[in-house]
Amino acid sequence: MLLDSMKNRRSIRKYTDQDIPESLLNELFEVAARASNTGNMQLYSVVVTRDQQSKEKQAPLHFNQKMVTEAPVLLTFCADANRFVKWAEARDAVPGFDNLQTFIAATIDAMLFAQAFCDAAEANDLGICYLGTTAYNADKIIDALNLPELVVPIVSVTVGYPADPLPEQVERLPLAAVVHREKYTDFTPESIDALYKAKEELPVNIQYTKENNKATLAQVFTDIRYTKKNNEYFSEVFMQVLKAQGFLK
Amino acid sequence: MLLDSMKNRRSIRKYTDQDIPESLLNELFEVAARASNTGNMQLYSVVVTRDQQSKEKQAPLHFNQKMVTEAPVLLTFCADANRFVKWAEARDAVPGFDNLQTFIAATIDAMLFAQAFCDAAEANDLGICYLGTTAYNADKIIDALNLPELVVPIVSVTVGYPADPLPEQVERLPLAAVVHREKYTDFTPESIDALYKAKEELPVNIQYTKENNKATLAQVFTDIRYTKKNNEYFSEVFMQVLKAQGFLK
Repeated sequence: MLLDSMKNRRSIRKYTDQDIPESLLNELFEVAARASNTGNMQLYSVVVTRDQQSKEKQAPLHFNQKMVTEAPVLLTFCADANRFVKWAEARDAVPGFDNLQTFIAATIDAMLFAQAFCDAAEANDLGICYLGTTAYNADKIIDALNLPELVVPIVSVTVGYPADPLPEQVERLPLAAVVHREKYTDFTPESIDALYKAKEELPVNIQYTKENNKATLAQVFTDIRYTKKNNEYFSEVFMQVLKAQGFLK
Repeated sequence: MLLDSMKNRRSIRKYTDQDIPESLLNELFEVAARASNTGNMQLYSVVVTRDQQSKEKQAPLHFNQKMVTEAPVLLTFCADANRFVKWAEARDAVPGFDNLQTFIAATIDAMLFAQAFCDAAEANDLGICYLGTTAYNADKIIDALNLPELVVPIVSVTVGYPADPLPEQVERLPLAAVVHREKYTDFTPESIDALYKAKEELPVNIQYTKENNKATLAQVFTDIRYTKKNNEYFSEVFMQVLKAQGFLK
């Protein structure tokens, strides 16, 4: 029955006016903190934004997606080695956490905490939407939220009670596209055709390709949504963020 | 009630002999695939290891932690832009996905998929344990599982039915250590003392510090478990992996 609710989930971008009680939010954080993490160091943190002015300030950093200002709560999940290092330094311990491996461990911790939060929130009738824009504009989000060294924002999530009507559930690829048995089986033109057939034949995707004046659905992604130019620009920004925050020399 | 089960969870390292039916495993993957992902590109994959020889081959890459060979199923979750790029290339689209930003997006996708799988698995009475060793020995795991370019293993998870007796639940820091309101509030020696007091006073942690011949609990982490030397060595390995797999120039 949890499986049913998880299976029927969809990202929610429109919310009712109903606020989220602080007690429920704390309960969900308590639950999420039970998720696995690296060596029980809990190398993550979350910044809760409820203040409307702060949401409006952050909105452009998320390309003005409306749910940032419309959701009652905006959460920013961070890879965080700062608290652990401050503890170690206060306890005659010499940490060596200013490196890529620690950043990866902290990113894993932050994402497991975020997803456990979202699963728990949805089981409590809340709706959520992840924002991938956080890793693009990490430098500006660091400024907006006063994040110190060894803290890097990875994703943001908007949370609220879903407004009617609920959006349609979007498609997923067949399991064979993501699950490999014993070894990774690389793809051939034929297996790609088979795995993407249903997705490409969906009326909504045919329409989407046409609206964007592209010959194929894939071109909408490579030419418009996730261009080489943008990916490279934001990669450079993120590399500088890792250096500035002390995870990379 | 889901909250209760999530709140009472613990990582499980000892399993009964009961196998996991393929139908249940597939159902859990279907559910996990409903988790959010970047632009519905599903930049992740999972390699399922059931074969005992393959588990034994991988065990040393996970520092011979026993659950790798004892669990019925070992899963390796990967950041994966390979399938998407193969699709784009077959559809007259020119992808620009060989960069750090794509790696971060794919790592996020892989972790949300992994954690949704674990939440669903635990709601079905399975036990799981994450292995952080995957990011240490990513180069060797790539060889063992035949991972192609643009695929990087991030975490592994062992899965099975929990053996009695269940382990004790381990402590977590107070919420105030991980949740910040509106802005990040950095820590002072006083706030560190307050947040770590309960953890440091736990008999099990006092004992653990003594067994390791250290003056403070923090020193067990910095001097033994996550040393600067190891962190820097494995950071260099991971940097080379990102280059070899095509995510970094």
